[in-house]
Amino acid sequence: MASIFTKIINREIPGHIIAEDENNIAFLDIMPLVKGHVLVVPKKEVDYIFDMASEDLTALHLFAQKVAKAMDKTIKCTRIGVAVIGLEVPHVHIHLVPLKTMDDINFTRPKLKLSQEELGEIADTIRGGFDS
Amino acid sequence: MASIFTKIINREIPGHIIAEDENNIAFLDIMPLVKGHVLVVPKKEVDYIFDMASEDLTALHLFAQKVAKAMDKTIKCTRIGVAVIGLEVPHVHIHLVPLKTMDDINFTRPKLKLSQEELGEIADTIRGGFDS
Repeated sequence: MASIFTKIINREIPGHIIAEDENNIAFLDIMPLVKGHVLVVPKKEVDYIFDMASEDLTALHLFAQKVAKAMDKTIKCTRIGVAVIGLEVPHVHIHLVPLKTMDDINFTRPKLKLSQEELGEIADTIRGGFDS
Repeated sequence: MASIFTKIINREIPGHIIAEDENNIAFLDIMPLVKGHVLVVPKKEVDYIFDMASEDLTALHLFAQKVAKAMDKTIKCTRIGVAVIGLEVPHVHIHLVPLKTMDDINFTRPKLKLSQEELGEIADTIRGGFDS
């Protein structure tokens, strides 16, 4: 069965998409730790990041770097933190989390509940940070 | 001033080194979240991971993948989690953390206190997981 991320990639369910290329996509986490929490996902459905082929892993991280730079330009934070956990959805996803404190990237704390409108505005903001 | 990680790289202070190549090194975190918590560090001292040159970032992540595979073979866990936070030591470091639960990668919880002997045994174990 297609993962929830594959359904976003295929536009079967809506997502607040930030950026996309042939192999990778970035969209907002709808249960964010902080405002501007983004997921970076390879289009090829692999469960575990360390099972990825070298070239796919490389492409994923270079794509994530571009997204993080756009986030740094547009979201107020000290820097962008990175986490890959993978105990829930079995499709690789890198969390990019705007950090001010260590607790901002603590996945055991309650998630924010943002409206679709708020998420849409955040996505627009980050999209504005990409080099044209 | 050289970072604490550069001092480990230069053997000015001791570290439980797991693996090393021309550009990157992996050693045990001496204040681990769980047993087998490893830091992967580029030898070139850069503060922020997303400021790294593409080729250096790529080499770092491919090196981290090799280390994670050795950890998967030798440390009891569900999978290896990844975190890059960078609010403390200003020298890029990827945390590789053997995970069983989400709380295993919660950096706000108390760290383990392990003896040098215990750390030495863990490092030996992980070193045994590399393909020869």
